[in-house]
Amino acid sequence: MKQLHKQSHTNQRRDEEMPNNQTPPYSPKSYKHSSSRRPLNYLFNEQRFLFIIIGMMIGSMIFIFQPSLSAITATTTTTNYHINSHIMPSMPRSISISHRERTAFNPRPTGRVPVGITRRRMRTVVTGGAGFVGSHLVDVLMARGDEVIVIDNFFTGRKDNVAHHLDNPRFELIRHDVVQPILLEVDQIYHLACPASPVHYKYNPIKTIKTNVIGTLNMLGLAKRINARFLITSTSEVYGDPLEHPQKESYWGHVNPIGVRSCYDEGKRTAETLTMDYSRNEGVEVRIARIFNTYGPRMCLDDGRVVSNFVSQALRKQPMTIYGDGKQTRSFQYVSDLVDGLIALMEGEHIGPFNLGNPREFTMLELAQVVKETIDPNATTEFRRNTADDPQKRKPDISKAKQLLNWEPKIQLQDGLPRMALDFKNRILKEEQGDIDK
Amino acid sequence: MKQLHKQSHTNQRRDEEMPNNQTPPYSPKSYKHSSSRRPLNYLFNEQRFLFIIIGMMIGSMIFIFQPSLSAITATTTTTNYHINSHIMPSMPRSISISHRERTAFNPRPTGRVPVGITRRRMRTVVTGGAGFVGSHLVDVLMARGDEVIVIDNFFTGRKDNVAHHLDNPRFELIRHDVVQPILLEVDQIYHLACPASPVHYKYNPIKTIKTNVIGTLNMLGLAKRINARFLITSTSEVYGDPLEHPQKESYWGHVNPIGVRSCYDEGKRTAETLTMDYSRNEGVEVRIARIFNTYGPRMCLDDGRVVSNFVSQALRKQPMTIYGDGKQTRSFQYVSDLVDGLIALMEGEHIGPFNLGNPREFTMLELAQVVKETIDPNATTEFRRNTADDPQKRKPDISKAKQLLNWEPKIQLQDGLPRMALDFKNRILKEEQGDIDK
Ligand SMILES: NC(=O)c1ccc[n+]([C@@H]2O[C@H](COP(=O)([O-])OP(=O)(O)OC[C@H]3O[C@@H](n4cnc5c(N)ncnc54)[C@H](O)[C@@H]3O)[C@@H](O)[C@H]2O)c1
Ligand SMILES: NC(=O)c1ccc[n+]([C@@H]2O[C@H](COP(=O)([O-])OP(=O)(O)OC[C@H]3O[C@@H](n4cnc5c(N)ncnc54)[C@H](O)[C@@H]3O)[C@@H](O)[C@H]2O)c1
Repeated sequence: MKQLHKQSHTNQRRDEEMPNNQTPPYSPKSYKHSSSRRPLNYLFNEQRFLFIIIGMMIGSMIFIFQPSLSAITATTTTTNYHINSHIMPSMPRSISISHRERTAFNPRPTGRVPVGITRRRMRTVVTGGAGFVGSHLVDVLMARGDEVIVIDNFFTGRKDNVAHHLDNPRFELIRHDVVQPILLEVDQIYHLACPASPVHYKYNPIKTIKTNVIGTLNMLGLAKRINARFLITSTSEVYGDPLEHPQKESYWGHVNPIGVRSCYDEGKRTAETLTMDYSRNEGVEVRIARIFNTYGPRMCLDDGRVVSNFVSQALRKQPMTIYGDGKQTRSFQYVSDLVDGLIALMEGEHIGPFNLGNPREFTMLELAQVVKETIDPNATTEFRRNTADDPQKRKPDISKAKQLLNWEPKIQLQDGLPRMALDFKNRILKEEQGDIDK
Repeated sequence: MKQLHKQSHTNQRRDEEMPNNQTPPYSPKSYKHSSSRRPLNYLFNEQRFLFIIIGMMIGSMIFIFQPSLSAITATTTTTNYHINSHIMPSMPRSISISHRERTAFNPRPTGRVPVGITRRRMRTVVTGGAGFVGSHLVDVLMARGDEVIVIDNFFTGRKDNVAHHLDNPRFELIRHDVVQPILLEVDQIYHLACPASPVHYKYNPIKTIKTNVIGTLNMLGLAKRINARFLITSTSEVYGDPLEHPQKESYWGHVNPIGVRSCYDEGKRTAETLTMDYSRNEGVEVRIARIFNTYGPRMCLDDGRVVSNFVSQALRKQPMTIYGDGKQTRSFQYVSDLVDGLIALMEGEHIGPFNLGNPREFTMLELAQVVKETIDPNATTEFRRNTADDPQKRKPDISKAKQLLNWEPKIQLQDGLPRMALDFKNRILKEEQGDIDK
């Protein structure tokens, strides 16, 4: 419309100029004046510059008093950016545009690929894909041939975790915080973005809630808009300090709403609520996984989670710290088992929630023993006071996942721990070398 | 800066125009051309209009490529608006501006009133102040002489509830949704905005979560920015379907995270978490009230809450609907008792949470009996199947509020119910008259 306006006025201007030019038709001076004088003079004569300024002010006013206009344009710009950068290498640009238009005008399309274009590969986004679990999930999705987009703000994740995919044209890494909305065209959304260990989620509890609630709202909104299937990684922490043992999915939990860990527990519970509400009210296809303690390569070295603590302490020849009396139990699942479970859940028919964890329980004392056996027979232990709200025991009942997803964990702690220790050893070595290099 | 620019160019233009005017100094035609021809011609000649358009485009471009500019201006505009409209009548405008500047440059001011200005009255904002509880709270705050600002989106609230204050210069009503941030200068924030009855909060569960989480985030952010004291009205629903009876504040609750009522229960729990996190991490002075069933004049007529249901059914000569067997109990507190409790909590020293409710329990059957006795001896009852997740019993332990706030409810059901019935009768009459008028 602006374009139209401009053109019509340009014509008008020409029409009105003609009589003027005709009045002194043969004066070289007036001729020079009307078209061939120096551009700067031309600009500053006849108040032209003043009128540019007036125009700028009018233009600005429109945006000041209609800020939404600017928001619209900004969003459109972002959309273009993301779509342009995420279209498959094999797709011509024009398709990506028609794609966007379809989304804009028809909010619930029935498929992701416009009519006439053969669907080639599954397009998957993994939020938090540069983190521990996310990066292992990405490995499997890449191996099966997906186009994978990772969204991560690198709060706890590391580029290193996905560095081996950066050269692959099917892979893309976007630095983005899920607390901000994003527009993408994908078939599946694995929504993992959220710090997982107490030391990280307590660091900025308000941000943790924003990530869980606003971040999940944004990704569910995206799923609805593009008709993608959405999986959220919730946590066994929704059971809190459980009064039932082991925990079934039907257990409502026993959670302190106002404690120092509540930002995570309540944030995840509300994220589950939102997920169910989008399923019930907006028809979004959702999946909910409740993940129990997971370990493996690429875990943070010093995130305060007990397995990583013990292993890195043992490798560094420090005593392993046991909080409380060490009789509280945990179940530990190896990360490849979890990834299998997440994919089975996403591809299956059932919403969940599903417990994904290893029901085999260890006390902290037993865990320390396995670390001794598999990593360093000379490792020692040290006891400290327990932190507030630390749940005393947690063990999944996984019969629902066994029955409906045909899934169960396969890797034993004795097998998984050495694989993790190898990775930790390399990273601790690198770290120490880094220190020496400095 | 824009202003400056404009001026300097205007000068430049004049300077450059002079020689031109000097060249044909005595030609009346050229004189006419430069200043006295008709304004429209003037505008369209010499491409002036084109230059306005170009200027408009440049102005617009700046805002399109720097959308943040527009956001800033928009926020500033809003700020100005709110501050200008909320300063006390006795405060000169210049003070309100220095006020805003202080907030902008010093995010944690020590008082709300700039040095040299005597503080006259408490400035209080009540979100959801056009609702049932909010409007009664406003009545008391107005009566004690506060400047009161009500923020409400009128989802369940009605202007009628505060209409009697609209002429008072100490009162102001703003139509605003707390899901959007707002800037105000006040001393106390009573944050009530949230639909309270199942029929309303289930209507759009996603919106209910946004109101509870994002709305609370916004109001806590405001409290932090202006160093105001913040009180949130949480609910007995945070106890869910309690396994302890009566409920103490230390009880963690038994709440379904993925049910149809979870949007309210989990939303409020997360709002409490946020409130505590702002207290612990940001030093905001907070107060948490957990409100149990409340009744009184101005309740919604058909909100599905049992007291309003029974009373309006009895007044309309319809049978009172009892869900389930009618043996589930509720405690009912009269609204003036609650308002006293909220103010005692706000003015007191303790964060809470505090249960505010009447521990006297009634079964649904007993309640129906009281309605019969006080409203219509001929009222009948009718039984229906219970809704999912409906808690079976709820009763506050209020010893903490008694001890620390010196508060306890005073109005008995037998006294409160007739007052409510009077209000309901008038409104139902009005409603029916409205129907006849149509
Ligand atoms: N590892 C476990 O034992 C465990 C147990 C229960 C649940 N979970 C859940 O699994 C998911 C992954 O956990 P993990 O162990 O890999 O944790 P992690 O901390 O290694 O990974 C989380 C990733 O999310 C990213 N992230 C955090 N906030 C973000 C934001 N606002 N925007 C974008 N990215 C953000 C981080 O940078 C990181 O890459 C989390 O949702 C976690 O709650 C993990
Ligand atoms: N009445 C009770 O029995 C009871 C019990 C427990 C808790 N509470 C709590 O007390 C508070 C007040 O409850 P009530 O009974 O007066 O309910 P109500 O529905 O009468 O009042 C709520 C008010 O908030 C407004 N509101 C809702 N969403 C809003 C939004 N996004 N932005 C701005 N305004 C919004 C509504 O328009 C209404 O005026 C609520 O927080 C409620 O959860 C009430």
